[in-house]
Formats: sequence, structure tokens, C-alpha cells
Amino acid sequence: MKLSDFSTFDQTTPSWLITNDTTSQIVLSSRVRYARNLAGFPFPNKATNSELAGILDIINMAFKDGERIPEFLNPIEYIAFDKISPLQAEFLVERHLISPDFIHGLKLNAKPQSPNSNLNTGRAVFINEDENVSLMVNEEDHLRFQVLSAGYDFTNGLKMLNALDDGLELILRYANSPQYGFLTSCPSNVGTGLRASVLIHLPGLVLTKEIEKVLRAIWQIGYNVRGFFGEGTETRGHFFQISNTVTLGQSETEIVEGIEKITNQLIGYEEKARDYMLKNTRKELEDKIYRAYAILSSARLIASQEALNLLATVRLGVAMNIITKTSIQRINQLMLLIRPANLQVFYNQEMSALERDEKRASLIHSLLNENSISNQILSPK
Amino acid sequence: MKLSDFSTFDQTTPSWLITNDTTSQIVLSSRVRYARNLAGFPFPNKATNSELAGILDIINMAFKDGERIPEFLNPIEYIAFDKISPLQAEFLVERHLISPDFIHGLKLNAKPQSPNSNLNTGRAVFINEDENVSLMVNEEDHLRFQVLSAGYDFTNGLKMLNALDDGLELILRYANSPQYGFLTSCPSNVGTGLRASVLIHLPGLVLTKEIEKVLRAIWQIGYNVRGFFGEGTETRGHFFQISNTVTLGQSETEIVEGIEKITNQLIGYEEKARDYMLKNTRKELEDKIYRAYAILSSARLIASQEALNLLATVRLGVAMNIITKTSIQRINQLMLLIRPANLQVFYNQEMSALERDEKRASLIHSLLNENSISNQILSPK
Repeated sequence: MKLSDFSTFDQTTPSWLITNDTTSQIVLSSRVRYARNLAGFPFPNKATNSELAGILDIINMAFKDGERIPEFLNPIEYIAFDKISPLQAEFLVERHLISPDFIHGLKLNAKPQSPNSNLNTGRAVFINEDENVSLMVNEEDHLRFQVLSAGYDFTNGLKMLNALDDGLELILRYANSPQYGFLTSCPSNVGTGLRASVLIHLPGLVLTKEIEKVLRAIWQIGYNVRGFFGEGTETRGHFFQISNTVTLGQSETEIVEGIEKITNQLIGYEEKARDYMLKNTRKELEDKIYRAYAILSSARLIASQEALNLLATVRLGVAMNIITKTSIQRINQLMLLIRPANLQVFYNQEMSALERDEKRASLIHSLLNENSISNQILSPK
Repeated sequence: MKLSDFSTFDQTTPSWLITNDTTSQIVLSSRVRYARNLAGFPFPNKATNSELAGILDIINMAFKDGERIPEFLNPIEYIAFDKISPLQAEFLVERHLISPDFIHGLKLNAKPQSPNSNLNTGRAVFINEDENVSLMVNEEDHLRFQVLSAGYDFTNGLKMLNALDDGLELILRYANSPQYGFLTSCPSNVGTGLRASVLIHLPGLVLTKEIEKVLRAIWQIGYNVRGFFGEGTETRGHFFQISNTVTLGQSETEIVEGIEKITNQLIGYEEKARDYMLKNTRKELEDKIYRAYAILSSARLIASQEALNLLATVRLGVAMNIITKTSIQRINQLMLLIRPANLQVFYNQEMSALERDEKRASLIHSLLNENSISNQILSPK
């Protein structure tokens, strides 16, 4: 695949980042995913190349049986890992369409004679046009499929996930046990196979230095917390992903309700922290936000990490009505486009780190100001 | 003295910072000063309070004999140290009208019953209206007088210094020896008593990391180099003061020619470094400069040290025609006005550190853009 074959992706913002809902100011997006395996085949890490290829063939056939696959999956893009470059794989990771684990350990574009070339065999991903649904084949499990939703919304995501699961189950035979539920490669996914998560922006808690305490509490009651894009060594990023750790012994409703409860608490804490800053440290807050906006508007070279941290700060400024020249929507879009692989796909050009820093700065200049250019789909070509 | 009594200073830029000469882009100012002592009195550090008071009386009388004092000293401001606040003393240091040593060790505004109150006795400074001439009484020597000139210019300064010295010598009897010349409190000033220095802006050498090597070479051939305002722990400042270390065994001409020779070399190195950056690292250079300008234009709070470092970077940008919205002149003015004591005198108001950071940011906003307000004398009141 040529880089330009990814051009259907590069000019649009995925639907899960497009939103006008005010709740999405704090919760960027919600994600649900199932882990499933085909009965009668070993898990991917134990499977031979021909078994992996066989699994992929079966799943491919299921998708060709269009009647049982929900409408929202049409048209679907099929990407096989022995056909793409490391840059293209990284692009898919940055867009949250495949997991980082899926490409770590894979030797992309390995030559056929290479002993590692088999790592790509039977690995693929299906992605729908809106980019809110993706299915990885032969990652840790035979099938991992997810639905991403804009803002804080599990209802729609679960409905879509179930529709897809039901459609596939009419064609495929899943490995499951009457006692445990769905069987998975890692015990932490056994049962419902459901993982639910939110991507949440907590700059108020970061700036008021409450974040460590809050995250530790979440971790202690049994949920996973990890920093999301925007982590630097100097500046702690502002984005976090909260997800359930256990899928066994809990119903889907309980899993999702647990995440919802924590998310509501986090939203409450974050709002309190923002109120506190407005009342007590408004000058310092404005200083941080205006500086971030000014640097983004004027830098001629900017690294990915610095840009993400500054965009996160400006995002807070927009949410608090301190910055009015741009929008949450535009910042969400930029946070994705400026990442190294996305930037190169956007410009349809492989670049050195210095070239990227320059293009990134110039892309931010042209897009940061909401009114500077049309809000329509962009083409740099 | 009330803070507002300093208002004659606060609205003007001293003449030695006003210049349109292009050579002043690198050399900000030149300074010459004489150290002199009255015959028949002990040096200040050995003198009693009444001797110090006596010395001051004699020098005061000399100034009242107006006919022998050069025209450029009229009108002259007389400031006695037992009448001013620590803030006012700091203000004079920041404006280079008195030495930092002159106020260290002095207990300003000490109550009469305090055992340290005598430290202020007999200490004073005379300053002319243009602020280019000042005379300290009873610092390390009975008399230390200096002429500051804009840009790279010793000729005028020495002429004025000599005129003043000749005028005073008609009235006062200086301590001198046929063998050594003028006698001074510290041996390093014996002889001519002349110290000559330039204040030089070397951002090109700092950014290309050549500066350490160059400064070490200057130090090794027997000249003093010290960082000037703009030193931070993170960012090395861009301003340096180069002066002679020895006054004995060299004529005035030799001293000044020595400094001139080094200054010419430094100007050459600095120009080469700037050319190098334009040719090889222009993007990185522009990035630094535009960021500095953007932060200065948008910060709501800014500390003195950070502001000085950023102003120094913008100053380079103006000199290299990368920034055109402001001028060298305006930046010279700001570098002085934003210093802690000057800022408070300018606003005629004692302020906490946080208040200063806020006022400093707002002063920079209103003055940085050359066309934003009149270039005339400003009044914030």
C-alpha cells in the first residue's frame, strides 16, 4: 500500500472526535470493545502461521456475508498487515483504530525470507468509514472489536457493539464456557470480554495538583488509569483513560455503570477545580492559557509532545471561555493531525523529525484560529 | 524621600540607552569612571562617621562652586543615603547610577538609635539630569565618578570625565603619589584610577554555544567579564560587561584601546555567529525569536528574569530584521523599566512579587509594539 492509499482517512476527523455537546468538554470520547475467539482454534500466540491465516479467512468470509453485518459497517476498509508500512501502522495506532500492542513485535514490511516475516501473516484490521468501529484480527485474541463514541456516551456504543456481535455470532462459532462465559487469551478478559473506557481531560485537577490523589483512589477501587497523549517528562499531560480491569463475575451493565459512576465523580471534581482556579488563581490560569495559545500561534518548529501539552491547555481555555478564537472541535482535530504518522499521511510525504516539527507548526498556525480557514474538510495537496 | 520624589527619573529613558546608531545593536553602552580620594583623609572603610561627613561636606562645597563644574552637570540631583528607602537605592542600582556594593552593607533608613545607622552617614550620590554622569561619595573611595555613553563610544565619555576631573581638581586636593599616580582604597585602582567597560549583547555567540570559549579567552588576557542583567539559572543571559582589571602601569589611552580592541573582536565574532545562524539554523532561530515575542505579548504574569531573557532574544530578532514591530530602542527602555525597583517607581507604588509580575506583563504589552502607543515620554499616572 502506498502512503496515498490512506488518503481516505487523512482529510477527515473521525466521528468520535466530532461533537458539539458541552459534556464532551471534559469527556472526549467513550469506548467499548469485545474480545472474542473462534472455537476450535488456538489463541493467536499459540497458533501457527497457517492457523492464523485460516482464522483470518473465516472472519473475512463472515464479512462478505453482508446481510448479517450491520449497516453501520458498510463500506468497510480491510487492511492486511503484510501490505502496509510501519508508518501506516503507526498512523492507525495514533487514530486508536488498532492497539499499540498489535504492532509491537510485528515486523512490518519484513521481506519474505526474513525469519520474522510470519509475524504479519493473518493479521489485519477492518475499519468502517466513520472510523468509529474497528475489528482487529489475531491481536491477543482472534477478534477484538470496538466502538468509539464522541463525548460521554456508552448507550449507543454498546448497542452498535451488540449488533455487530450478534451478526458475527450467526456466522462464527465463539469459544465460550457455560461457567466462565467467553474464553480469551488473557484471563482478565474472560467472561463478558467487555472493556469500557472513557478518555477524559482533567487539566483542572492537574493544575491544582489534586490529580495524583484522585487517580490513586480510582486505581485502588480496581480501575485502570493511564495517561493518554500529552504525557511529557516536564509537563504532566492532561488526558487520562479510565477503564475496567475485570470482565469476569460482572454483567455488562455493571461494568458500564461502574465506569459511569467514576466518570461522573471525576467530572464533578474537575468542575470544582476549575471553579477554584477561577476564584483563586485566575491570573495564573489566564497566564498559562494565553502563553500556550501564543506559542502555538507563533512557533516555527514544534515537537509533538510540546504541541499536545499546549493544545490541552488551550482546550481548557476554550472550555472556560478564556479563549474564543478557536473551538474544542478544532483542538480535538489538531491533537490527532499533529501526531507524527498522521502528519505525514496528511501531507502525503515521509518526513524527518525536523521537517515534521516545521510542518506541524505551520499546520497549527493555519488551523488553530477557527475562522482563519474553512471548517470544511481540508486538503493540503 | 517619598517614592514619588523619584518621579523625575521614572518617565524617561536615560540618555545612554537612547540611540539610533546601528553599532549600538551589539554594544549597548560604554562606561568610563575614575576613582579619586581626598588628600589628608582616611579611605572610607577606615574613616569615622565625622570624617565621612566632613568628606561629603567638602565635595558638596565643590559642587556649589558652580563655575568650575562643567555645564553638562547642571542641574544636578543630590541624593543622601540617610534620606532614601531600600527600594529607591535599588532603583539607582538598576539604573547603573550607583554600584551594588554601595548599598550592600548599608542599612538603609536605619533609625538613629540603631548601631548601624552610621553606615549611611556621609554617603551620597550626585546625578545629572541626562543620567549619564554620576558621582558616588564614600563608596570604596571618596569619589567614584562615571560617564555612561550610548553605544560604542569612549571618546565623548573620556572628554566629559576629564572635564569633570579637571574642574574638581581646581577645588579639591587629590591623594596621589609621583611614583604610583592616584592612590585608591584597593590596589587594583591605583594609577590612573580609570575603569573602562562596554555592555555588550552577544546572543549569537550564546546560541551557537561559542560564548564560553570566547569569554575564557578574554579573561585569560587579563580582562574582566561578567554576565549582565538577563542571567537565569536555566537560560544563560545574553549581556556581558567587559572591563579592564588593571589601572597601574597603563596609560588611559592604553586602557581604552585595550577594551576597544577586544570589543571590535567580539563584534566580529558576534556578526559571524549571526551570519552562521541565518545560513544554517534559520528556522530554529526564527522559532526562538517568534516564541519570545509571542510570550512577551501574551503573558499575564512574568518574572523579571524571564522577561529579560525573552527581551534579549527579541532584541536579536530586531537587529536581524526578523521582528519589525518593535525597536532596539524600545527594548532597551523595557529592559530597564521592568526591573523590580524601576517598575515600582514607574507605577509610583510598592508592590508584592505577584503584583509586580502582573504589572510587568501589562507594561510589556503596552510598550512592546512600537506603534501601539506614542514613543513619547510615558506617564502611567
